[in-house]
Amino acid sequence: MAQYIFAVDLGGTTVKLGLFDKEGNVLEKWEIVTRKENNGENILPDIAATILAKAEEKAIAKEDILGIGIGVPGPVDSKGTIYKAANLGWDVFNVSDTLSELTGLPVKTGNDANVAALGEMWKGGGQGYNSIVAVTLGTGVGGGVIIEGKLLAGATGAGGEIGHIHVEDNERIPCGCGNTGCLEQYTSATGITRLANERLALDAKPSVLRDGEVSAKTVFDAVKAGDELAIEVAEIFGMYLGKGLAVVGAVVNPEAFVIGGGVSKAGEVLFDYIEKNYMKYSFHGTRNVKFKLATLGNDAGIYGAAKLVLE
Amino acid sequence: MAQYIFAVDLGGTTVKLGLFDKEGNVLEKWEIVTRKENNGENILPDIAATILAKAEEKAIAKEDILGIGIGVPGPVDSKGTIYKAANLGWDVFNVSDTLSELTGLPVKTGNDANVAALGEMWKGGGQGYNSIVAVTLGTGVGGGVIIEGKLLAGATGAGGEIGHIHVEDNERIPCGCGNTGCLEQYTSATGITRLANERLALDAKPSVLRDGEVSAKTVFDAVKAGDELAIEVAEIFGMYLGKGLAVVGAVVNPEAFVIGGGVSKAGEVLFDYIEKNYMKYSFHGTRNVKFKLATLGNDAGIYGAAKLVLE
Repeated sequence: MAQYIFAVDLGGTTVKLGLFDKEGNVLEKWEIVTRKENNGENILPDIAATILAKAEEKAIAKEDILGIGIGVPGPVDSKGTIYKAANLGWDVFNVSDTLSELTGLPVKTGNDANVAALGEMWKGGGQGYNSIVAVTLGTGVGGGVIIEGKLLAGATGAGGEIGHIHVEDNERIPCGCGNTGCLEQYTSATGITRLANERLALDAKPSVLRDGEVSAKTVFDAVKAGDELAIEVAEIFGMYLGKGLAVVGAVVNPEAFVIGGGVSKAGEVLFDYIEKNYMKYSFHGTRNVKFKLATLGNDAGIYGAAKLVLE
Repeated sequence: MAQYIFAVDLGGTTVKLGLFDKEGNVLEKWEIVTRKENNGENILPDIAATILAKAEEKAIAKEDILGIGIGVPGPVDSKGTIYKAANLGWDVFNVSDTLSELTGLPVKTGNDANVAALGEMWKGGGQGYNSIVAVTLGTGVGGGVIIEGKLLAGATGAGGEIGHIHVEDNERIPCGCGNTGCLEQYTSATGITRLANERLALDAKPSVLRDGEVSAKTVFDAVKAGDELAIEVAEIFGMYLGKGLAVVGAVVNPEAFVIGGGVSKAGEVLFDYIEKNYMKYSFHGTRNVKFKLATLGNDAGIYGAAKLVLE
């Protein structure tokens, strides 16, 4: 009886892998290096080899494996086609078909941020909900939309790209994507640092942030300590994120927003700044929504990859 | 063999009904009055009675009816629960269960704008696509999101409420929803008329719009005739709609936007103003999208209601 799942979270440096049972228990976790040379031609063969080796080591027969789920860093449609992954050197091809040929196992593929969202819904901060929007506040801002338990991949794999929602008309500095005024420019770790540095340069108002490194972490530590200038920065952050999520709410009307990524380590204090702005800018019919913290950290990807197989 | 579908488009004045075969051919269309007195308690019994009478008239046995689909003017979740419909006098209850008890037939219920979107995808301007966002530019601005053939209802029935996306920080006049700066305030028929009147009041620039009624129709007629002032108004309209749809694109990454409602009678000239702004504000991964005109007009609702049954 098929009861095992192999889950893969493919990153630019490391491939994280997990062996799951179908209830979502991790039986084993391990990592291999991502070999990017020659346009990443070794990546999928390496993944296939380590999975087949692990199955042999554990004496798991192929008919006992439900399949492989994999999250990859690039836009992926619902059939498993990736539309380029620049930092792996990959061009357009079908990841599911290729990995399936290499392993003889069924494969489901998703975008890494979307797959992490699925993981958070299944076993993390979104547990108990069926329709969520996950927001990852890291170096950039990623997102994943899950509707009635199913990942919204998008026609060309760009579903849930909420870091690139336009939220500011009066921005001059371009975002990494080439546009100006993207949500990511104000609410990523990088964006928060920038907002803080701009505020510090504005006048000589005292702040603990003048005494050391300025980062998303030090900003929110200062907010918790009651630092007025840091609180001003948090207000701006919250205005942009609340406004951005209000727009997302009007489109998909989720049960919950699950906030993850490095910035979310600040904890529930973030909600003090996000929620009131969400309520201000959102359509009244979308205000019955919960704000939750992500709980799976770096494991969200493998949990979501396992869930992909069970979808 | 079950092969007939009854489709219902419930409006505030009239109930439109259709008898369909499962290929989507309309075999008959008719209407009854919407009796709103006593909090609309007669509405569903009236609908049940006219459907059962039509089945008898046509000698269609119950086992030959796949079910009833109905679009209603209010927020409806995927289980058929309506969260109030102010203009019918309805409070919260399950429409599908109630109409099913009255008819002995399976019932599927959706929000009217969402259901019309489904109709346009099935048999209208969105034909051939699987994931679309329909935008209705009427007195207000409605929307419907279809993902891989399935309606996105939203957790509390407010999915696709894209008329209430926030697009302007510097608005003072409130939208009907109570917020300020909603997409609807600039891109509905009412909004376009307002934009035109504001532009006319700004200075004495000549325009054919000074000689008669100002409406969305006269504005776009003037645009087609090369009227410079009308073209300025169309540019503002297009900036807001392009910016709003760019945000929608980043969230759901559809294959096509289908533009309907009274304003869409202006035709493809609208796309001259929408598309360039969509391209300006959208995330690059969401730019491979088509803009289409809705084609079903007032019949979109019954087509979509029929399709609900086949989902």
